[in-house]
Amino acid sequence: MRNVTKDNITDVFKGYMSDDMNPRMREVMGSLVQHLHDFARETNLTHDEWRTGIQFLEGCAAIESEDRHEFVLASDVLGLSSLVDMLHSREDATSSSVLGPFHVSGAPPLEVGGDMKRHFGGPVLLAEGTIKDTDGNPIAGAELDIWQTAPNGLYASQDEEQDTFSFHGLMTVGDDGKYAFTTVKPVEYTVPSDGPVGAILDACGRHPWRPSHLHYIVKAPGYRSLVTEVFPEDDPYLDQDTVFGVRNDLVMTYHEKPASEFPEGLALSGSVNEPFLAVTFDITLAKE
Amino acid sequence: MRNVTKDNITDVFKGYMSDDMNPRMREVMGSLVQHLHDFARETNLTHDEWRTGIQFLEGCAAIESEDRHEFVLASDVLGLSSLVDMLHSREDATSSSVLGPFHVSGAPPLEVGGDMKRHFGGPVLLAEGTIKDTDGNPIAGAELDIWQTAPNGLYASQDEEQDTFSFHGLMTVGDDGKYAFTTVKPVEYTVPSDGPVGAILDACGRHPWRPSHLHYIVKAPGYRSLVTEVFPEDDPYLDQDTVFGVRNDLVMTYHEKPASEFPEGLALSGSVNEPFLAVTFDITLAKE
Repeated sequence: MRNVTKDNITDVFKGYMSDDMNPRMREVMGSLVQHLHDFARETNLTHDEWRTGIQFLEGCAAIESEDRHEFVLASDVLGLSSLVDMLHSREDATSSSVLGPFHVSGAPPLEVGGDMKRHFGGPVLLAEGTIKDTDGNPIAGAELDIWQTAPNGLYASQDEEQDTFSFHGLMTVGDDGKYAFTTVKPVEYTVPSDGPVGAILDACGRHPWRPSHLHYIVKAPGYRSLVTEVFPEDDPYLDQDTVFGVRNDLVMTYHEKPASEFPEGLALSGSVNEPFLAVTFDITLAKE
Repeated sequence: MRNVTKDNITDVFKGYMSDDMNPRMREVMGSLVQHLHDFARETNLTHDEWRTGIQFLEGCAAIESEDRHEFVLASDVLGLSSLVDMLHSREDATSSSVLGPFHVSGAPPLEVGGDMKRHFGGPVLLAEGTIKDTDGNPIAGAELDIWQTAPNGLYASQDEEQDTFSFHGLMTVGDDGKYAFTTVKPVEYTVPSDGPVGAILDACGRHPWRPSHLHYIVKAPGYRSLVTEVFPEDDPYLDQDTVFGVRNDLVMTYHEKPASEFPEGLALSGSVNEPFLAVTFDITLAKE
């Protein structure tokens, strides 16, 4: 097309796509470019603003590494990651929520009733629940991949003071579908805000805080894997999670209980001498 | 918001923006995220597709350097760069066209009538014209920053065989507004296609070719600077420029003329013994 104009360029772009390309790729690229162009037209985007956008991407590129996933973080704080989660959540299952950049594969096994708190200070949290199917029946042998922050607000991968798998565990439930473990109550924390994404948060007058949460990936053969989180209902950032991860059904009460009510049969049984917190979070998986 | 849904997340995002942020930033970010979310909803974007998008950005990041501007290239082949150009083109002035990634600041002076061809082979091209205002009056002292490919299809910055400023020149016109220089006819060439952007072109069944062109940046005090290109009307890629740079008013006839018609008063006068090409491309600048 030798007469490209601001009004026909989107159609020219679509016309460049080959008839025999993958139809889904055509659909996704066509929609992406339609929206990209509509955005530029609606805002009458200037060269300076375009340059700012390119510099944002180049700034992310400059700090991108195995330990710093700035593009994922950008997607998180713009709500895209959560939106994709929600588009593919099943209404009859527990809501999914953001994976985030801190999951580490290969966590060590953690037995049902085991402990992740170890020598760390802070209130003991007993987390338990049942992994169920959509009829409410327990899913025997379901696997929970669990991770969270240490009391200093850092994940193991961010913190040289922690072991690689500190506050990470992989639990396989028995026939009753029940999981249980002790840990220290996770804390609210800030997403990394010293890079280009932090500059965007700043420019929008936004804070970088997330409410405290436990992360789970739950898997069982024949069921859709679930990436989710559980939040305490009294968290100050519950209504303003900077990555949009909170869903109503993921907000739970963390009950404060006296040491005398700490149950038998757990790794920490007999050694808890102060009040502890307990949360029950049942998880429903949908069939594949 | 503790009940973020796929339907309200865009409004939640907008609600997170502070009342006292820069109003233009609010407008641009609001529109960007509205379109990003609408894109995801319309296509029902999957986790795998989201991951492909993140990997695309990370792949660009991995090769981004001073000599390789993959994010700019992505903007170019998606038509965004050209769209921004066209949004800010003045209808009463010569059309603007893509800057591209190969402009180098600090080109050496080139006198009116000077030569950029030097020892390089290929047909002599004489390019000339007048820099005018919108009333058709010459703009005395206008400055032309000129650059193009060598006959091998490479810009100086891509090619170790060339000097830094090979096929680059900075010309200041006299009171008559006229410019003229000799060079070798530019050739069509491919944008860098061995990276993530090339993979997108491939997946869309698109080629990486641009029609041949001369690049100009034209500046004069009191006038809007113009970034533009001139294309020969017989170029095979004129109707399918992979970066959408062609505009009707930038397509010119390159006339073939006998050596005997080569004009006097140019650096190459008297030394042209074969037929040459001549193009006249007048350039109109709008007032600021």
